[in-house]
Amino acid sequence: MASKLWEKTVELNHDVERYTVGRDREMDMYLARYDVLGSIAHITMLESIGLLSASELDTLTAELRRIYADIEAGRFHIDEGVEDVHSQVELLLTQRQGDVGKKIHSGRSRNDQVLVDLRLFTRSEIEDLVHHITALFKTLQSQSERYKHVLMPGYTHLQVAMPSSFGLWFGAYAESLADDLTVLKAAYDVVNRNPLGSAAGYGSSFPLDRELTTRLLGFASVDYNVVYAQMGRGKTERIVSAAIANVAATISKLACDACMFNCQNFGFIKLPDEFTTGSSIMPHKKNPDVFELTRARCNRLQALPYSITMITSNLPVGYFRDLQLIKEEFLPEFDEIKTVIAMVDAMMRQVQVNEHILDDPRYDLMFSVEQVNRLAAAGMPFRDAYKKVGLDIEQGRFKAVKEVHHTHEGSMGNLCNDRVAALYRATLESFDFDTYHQAFDKLLGK
Amino acid sequence: MASKLWEKTVELNHDVERYTVGRDREMDMYLARYDVLGSIAHITMLESIGLLSASELDTLTAELRRIYADIEAGRFHIDEGVEDVHSQVELLLTQRQGDVGKKIHSGRSRNDQVLVDLRLFTRSEIEDLVHHITALFKTLQSQSERYKHVLMPGYTHLQVAMPSSFGLWFGAYAESLADDLTVLKAAYDVVNRNPLGSAAGYGSSFPLDRELTTRLLGFASVDYNVVYAQMGRGKTERIVSAAIANVAATISKLACDACMFNCQNFGFIKLPDEFTTGSSIMPHKKNPDVFELTRARCNRLQALPYSITMITSNLPVGYFRDLQLIKEEFLPEFDEIKTVIAMVDAMMRQVQVNEHILDDPRYDLMFSVEQVNRLAAAGMPFRDAYKKVGLDIEQGRFKAVKEVHHTHEGSMGNLCNDRVAALYRATLESFDFDTYHQAFDKLLGK
Amino acid sequence: MASKLWEKTVELNHDVERYTVGRDREMDMYLARYDVLGSIAHITMLESIGLLSASELDTLTAELRRIYADIEAGRFHIDEGVEDVHSQVELLLTQRQGDVGKKIHSGRSRNDQVLVDLRLFTRSEIEDLVHHITALFKTLQSQSERYKHVLMPGYTHLQVAMPSSFGLWFGAYAESLADDLTVLKAAYDVVNRNPLGSAAGYGSSFPLDRELTTRLLGFASVDYNVVYAQMGRGKTERIVSAAIANVAATISKLACDACMFNCQNFGFIKLPDEFTTGSSIMPHKKNPDVFELTRARCNRLQALPYSITMITSNLPVGYFRDLQLIKEEFLPEFDEIKTVIAMVDAMMRQVQVNEHILDDPRYDLMFSVEQVNRLAAAGMPFRDAYKKVGLDIEQGRFKAVKEVHHTHEGSMGNLCNDRVAALYRATLESFDFDTYHQAFDKLLGK
Amino acid sequence: MASKLWEKTVELNHDVERYTVGRDREMDMYLARYDVLGSIAHITMLESIGLLSASELDTLTAELRRIYADIEAGRFHIDEGVEDVHSQVELLLTQRQGDVGKKIHSGRSRNDQVLVDLRLFTRSEIEDLVHHITALFKTLQSQSERYKHVLMPGYTHLQVAMPSSFGLWFGAYAESLADDLTVLKAAYDVVNRNPLGSAAGYGSSFPLDRELTTRLLGFASVDYNVVYAQMGRGKTERIVSAAIANVAATISKLACDACMFNCQNFGFIKLPDEFTTGSSIMPHKKNPDVFELTRARCNRLQALPYSITMITSNLPVGYFRDLQLIKEEFLPEFDEIKTVIAMVDAMMRQVQVNEHILDDPRYDLMFSVEQVNRLAAAGMPFRDAYKKVGLDIEQGRFKAVKEVHHTHEGSMGNLCNDRVAALYRATLESFDFDTYHQAFDKLLGK
Repeated sequence: MASKLWEKTVELNHDVERYTVGRDREMDMYLARYDVLGSIAHITMLESIGLLSASELDTLTAELRRIYADIEAGRFHIDEGVEDVHSQVELLLTQRQGDVGKKIHSGRSRNDQVLVDLRLFTRSEIEDLVHHITALFKTLQSQSERYKHVLMPGYTHLQVAMPSSFGLWFGAYAESLADDLTVLKAAYDVVNRNPLGSAAGYGSSFPLDRELTTRLLGFASVDYNVVYAQMGRGKTERIVSAAIANVAATISKLACDACMFNCQNFGFIKLPDEFTTGSSIMPHKKNPDVFELTRARCNRLQALPYSITMITSNLPVGYFRDLQLIKEEFLPEFDEIKTVIAMVDAMMRQVQVNEHILDDPRYDLMFSVEQVNRLAAAGMPFRDAYKKVGLDIEQGRFKAVKEVHHTHEGSMGNLCNDRVAALYRATLESFDFDTYHQAFDKLLGK
Repeated sequence: MASKLWEKTVELNHDVERYTVGRDREMDMYLARYDVLGSIAHITMLESIGLLSASELDTLTAELRRIYADIEAGRFHIDEGVEDVHSQVELLLTQRQGDVGKKIHSGRSRNDQVLVDLRLFTRSEIEDLVHHITALFKTLQSQSERYKHVLMPGYTHLQVAMPSSFGLWFGAYAESLADDLTVLKAAYDVVNRNPLGSAAGYGSSFPLDRELTTRLLGFASVDYNVVYAQMGRGKTERIVSAAIANVAATISKLACDACMFNCQNFGFIKLPDEFTTGSSIMPHKKNPDVFELTRARCNRLQALPYSITMITSNLPVGYFRDLQLIKEEFLPEFDEIKTVIAMVDAMMRQVQVNEHILDDPRYDLMFSVEQVNRLAAAGMPFRDAYKKVGLDIEQGRFKAVKEVHHTHEGSMGNLCNDRVAALYRATLESFDFDTYHQAFDKLLGK
Repeated sequence: MASKLWEKTVELNHDVERYTVGRDREMDMYLARYDVLGSIAHITMLESIGLLSASELDTLTAELRRIYADIEAGRFHIDEGVEDVHSQVELLLTQRQGDVGKKIHSGRSRNDQVLVDLRLFTRSEIEDLVHHITALFKTLQSQSERYKHVLMPGYTHLQVAMPSSFGLWFGAYAESLADDLTVLKAAYDVVNRNPLGSAAGYGSSFPLDRELTTRLLGFASVDYNVVYAQMGRGKTERIVSAAIANVAATISKLACDACMFNCQNFGFIKLPDEFTTGSSIMPHKKNPDVFELTRARCNRLQALPYSITMITSNLPVGYFRDLQLIKEEFLPEFDEIKTVIAMVDAMMRQVQVNEHILDDPRYDLMFSVEQVNRLAAAGMPFRDAYKKVGLDIEQGRFKAVKEVHHTHEGSMGNLCNDRVAALYRATLESFDFDTYHQAFDKLLGK
Repeated sequence: MASKLWEKTVELNHDVERYTVGRDREMDMYLARYDVLGSIAHITMLESIGLLSASELDTLTAELRRIYADIEAGRFHIDEGVEDVHSQVELLLTQRQGDVGKKIHSGRSRNDQVLVDLRLFTRSEIEDLVHHITALFKTLQSQSERYKHVLMPGYTHLQVAMPSSFGLWFGAYAESLADDLTVLKAAYDVVNRNPLGSAAGYGSSFPLDRELTTRLLGFASVDYNVVYAQMGRGKTERIVSAAIANVAATISKLACDACMFNCQNFGFIKLPDEFTTGSSIMPHKKNPDVFELTRARCNRLQALPYSITMITSNLPVGYFRDLQLIKEEFLPEFDEIKTVIAMVDAMMRQVQVNEHILDDPRYDLMFSVEQVNRLAAAGMPFRDAYKKVGLDIEQGRFKAVKEVHHTHEGSMGNLCNDRVAALYRATLESFDFDTYHQAFDKLLGK
């Protein structure tokens, strides 16, 4: 059978084949378009070093572009009995163009083909993820500006402590995403290097031009050492998952707050009915299912790097089939985090904040620190002011002035959302997605 | 008691105090010098906004510099009965300079004081770690160059597969460290932002100049939003630990290889006697204890981000005492990874490689792929060449030519160590440690 | 709509519904038959306390048994637009029997219904898992007996150390499973308690007879405290997953050995061709893909309790929707571990051991310890015997006597497989699956 | 040097020695008394098989008992320059009794000596832990009985849902500990097997009587297969840590509740001043530091099994020095969990519950479900009763009857604490600690 070109003459029995192929066919659909792009770059390079004729290159390129168009149009699938996406593409080429189709395999092994597919997929998915994060960042900043004058209690130790504001609360999560983006950029840089040409992890005797495929695929650099290129399998996924886990941690915390603030004992926010479930006999019960599931999904995402680490840990140098399993953990991860972010973005745009929280006298005492500071600003040593206010409270003489005049950078009176946005933008611009977009356009003849 | 300035009148009993203070006194010794630097920057700023007189600033600065010198000289310790480093510094100031000592606390809370101490400590430790990584990087690259012509078997699936070289093996781990440095730089960027002025996480009514303390402490930017600044506690440690775990993963894998290559069934490397243990009745038994412990310590380091995640997970916004416990996990982590790197560096400099591995005929067949490629390079379709060599082997006609001519980038004939070094250097130079060194010198009047 | 009986009048929009329902329809198919069994027990009890008439009970029981038969026959599915298995069963009942169908919900909430379904499912799956483990245990013990006289090198620090045997190697993993079964039994005991009647976690004002449903469903005891019964959600899954992770750890280690022993540098075992992949130009290359994937799948299983812990950690008392997500992690776990065990069992039955390993002189020195012991047994102090043999080796006078006479319990000459089997059997018999089988038969009128 | 009896002639340099010895001296102090007990059992067996004379046995036993007494009295320490506890004990024996001291090493290796020490230590520590858990169990049950009539709100989705009670709340955690004890018992059973005699993991040519040492040390059975006995290192610690993590999960959740219930927005409980910190200007601020640290310490304990798993994962059969590092994680774990439990026990005995929570009208609606059930009990179909009450609420006609009459098992009116206690006691009694106490008394001549 053409479909398993590498197989030994001995027939694998059905169960073993199912066990080893696993969910690879399903997983490889994530990689299909990148497999084609990688192949076009590879054959372009093969022609440049004389391993393909110009006309062979033309034939193959045209056919690969047709396959790419099929993938885009949802017309591509991996046939029953064909092991993976690489075999399927090669099968289509040989079915349609004959023996020349086999030539795309020269100077390449299944290992570096998977490696480059994973890098191209991950790079694109990170780009898409970045756009999702950016949308949520903007929503949070805009809600921060919108509600910057609405005060809320600030807690330490889950004890009412000091005045805070919705401006601070929304803005904090925006700034958290800015830092998360910094770590994601580093993951992107690790990904954005070209492993193609490393063959099975020990290089090739063909005079491959790896700088050329690097340019053709829009990578920032070659993943030089061929042994290291192979070592990147598992490592790259772990680093990217850890960067995604960071984003998940930010959102999980936001969801945690939202669930608590939605509790009747707080009543700080109100989620739109569309996002809650309830019961007709308890009309005030608004179960924040969507936020709970968001929290749970983010917490699961935080466990994922550990799962990948467990699979790769204590494996010596060289390829192992163990690494295949990581695909099942890693490839669907992007859809998961993007779905979560889109849902949180929708909720944060529609969440209603309670503008009258502080009417409740239970929060009066949190203005005592402000009073201490007023006295201190007026010249009284801090510790003495502290004692005086304490005495006032003890003797029932304390009266809350529910005003806060904070002026310093990052305080509720001076949120600096614009400066946070500038930091965010600087990181965003450093991604330089255009380089690879242009490279892809060229490969596809656009 | 002066030592617990925040305490309520009710006496905490001894056991509860031990439980809550925990190992804080020990842990805070890591932070002492940074606490002093943070205080000098804080009071300099207080003077600039009129909350301290110039002469008060002089007095306090001089005293803080003396305390700093004591710390450097190993003469500083936290007194029995004093809760933490912050209380100890304030105690010394008031003992020596009287009431003015109390003023350093204006416009600051314990929370942002700890936050800034942790950032300053972490930034310095990352610098030191970077120097350790750089030393190991250079050792690995230099060994890669030295042994670039020594062939060794390359494995896939732990099956003898293709020729590799010690040049590739050493070089792969060097390049791995280059990627690890990229992620570490992102962690550094997250750390290198100033939380001072966020007070207890809700800001202050004092007109603090946070941009000033940012410059004085050599930070790259303000950690603006005060709620987010507090949220950075735990998050920063997790991000840095994940970056360290990356380095640990690289070294763990190297140690894994070394333990295997040192096994008599491989015999690829020989560790110097100083690094092995053995027994007089089994003279060829060289237990690679040092590499085993290196592997174990690195694997433990890889579990650390998960421990931190467990502590912080599902905590809503605001400070919790839970975060204190992270210090015990995080602060000693740098000494651990640096010790490990220093030991691995020493071993990699002295490791002896076996230059005669391939004399063993068991490795002959791995040259069959080279033969296939030679035929393919000479024009035979790849699949046909593959079949021909297979047939030769089956019929006993295959003869290994133990030569490898790989020329492409990153292959054993063209390691590109210089280009990897250039990538490494570019990341290294982006750290810009000098900015904070100069800032610290100014604070200390140097 | 009948399908979402609990829903508020407000229409949830499509995306939110997809987000909250998640993969519940798919997951609930695992639970369908147990949902029916739980319902039969519940209504039997309702009749006993006068909340159903005898004829209503008959009608509903007959219909539920028909649904059960449909599930067994693969004819049951959850309709599009129906939220979960509980709604589907209720829908079928009301469609077929009218309003009486609604009565099965009296004195029960969705929460305790899911709880009891999960317990019943898990109990049955543990039983099935135990049978798989037992099969592998027997295979390993039988291979241990079969190869008890075949020596192999024993390693410490991955250094050739002392003679071992295949009898010991196979037998060790059998005994490991015996201990794993002990932990699995404890997990079973935690599972085998009845949460039905805890309603939404705060009990019910109906005079439910929870001891009766406990007997009807064959549980060992009531999960008494209703708040604790709800708290068992997540906790039970974590405990069971940790017990499965134990089994996975044993198998992962076995797979690790197998991959190493299959390496040409060891050559201790040979896997049947059906379980390996290879290449025609490297006929001796037998990639142990099946063992590698086994190792990876087991390592992923070991990460699963951590994922569950992350989801449940730091949640206060009471139900949260977060817990729903655990189903996706937990329910498919049993198929996964059972598939792995079945494959390993097949491989261990067919693995071929190399009976001539010790012909290789590289292993001679490992007989030196035997020589020391012979001298010591003859009266020489141990340390002196040790020195003498060391000297002999140094001076080239040592000659390996490749015989081992170990007689003590658990040694290669006295494996005690029968006693290990007795320990295993004792644990196996303590499970008492018959109690629930008989209870189920009664519920189904068999 | 007598202190490192196994060392090679080559001198290890100082740094390497520090690196390999690590914190072993400190860690081994946990094991000292068990090392002596193991040695007494070992030599008693050696005499029974003729490897020691009766008078040698007497001499050595007497000296070992003296060392044991020194350990008990705090007079034992590991000398500078002595590697570990085993060397220290042997050193003392030879210093005091001459060459006969060396004979205790016959038929034993460092490996099985450490293994048996760890088992004996762990068994004793589990006993001590069980006593701590039992004390907390009793406290929780007694508070459950004491406050069984005090109602509190029950939440689902952190939304006010249904009436609950402090009787349920305290009792739930007691019952949780009962299940945790079941898992701990399984861990105990895995531990309570004798690895002594397995030597370096491949047995011994001496005719050891392992059944005898098993009886002498009060183990329930031999850890038969010597390869498996060695494999227990790491595995045992992982299983025990997972069992401890279970207890930690229960307590972490309790602490989570306590922190939330102590929040002013709930005000359900009041912690005694001794257990809180606060500030004089916010007298109502009672920071629950002790519960927060309890939660954090328990969450760290939950991460520990993963740390151990990371160290042991993907290691093939046989001893590796990696396993030594687990001691640093594992040995101090018992003190940690016992300290936490003791503190929680003290707090739970002193916590004050708010008996007037339900005066707040915000909780009225949670009595609506009771009303539905009252109507249903009176004959109205459940769904209709549900609708009627819903309508009453909507039209402002609902009036809360703040009474709850739950009668079924485990409900607030029928807590079944006695039956939970009976389950607990049954597990407790299955531990059979006396067997080993009596064995130890004999070894010590008591």
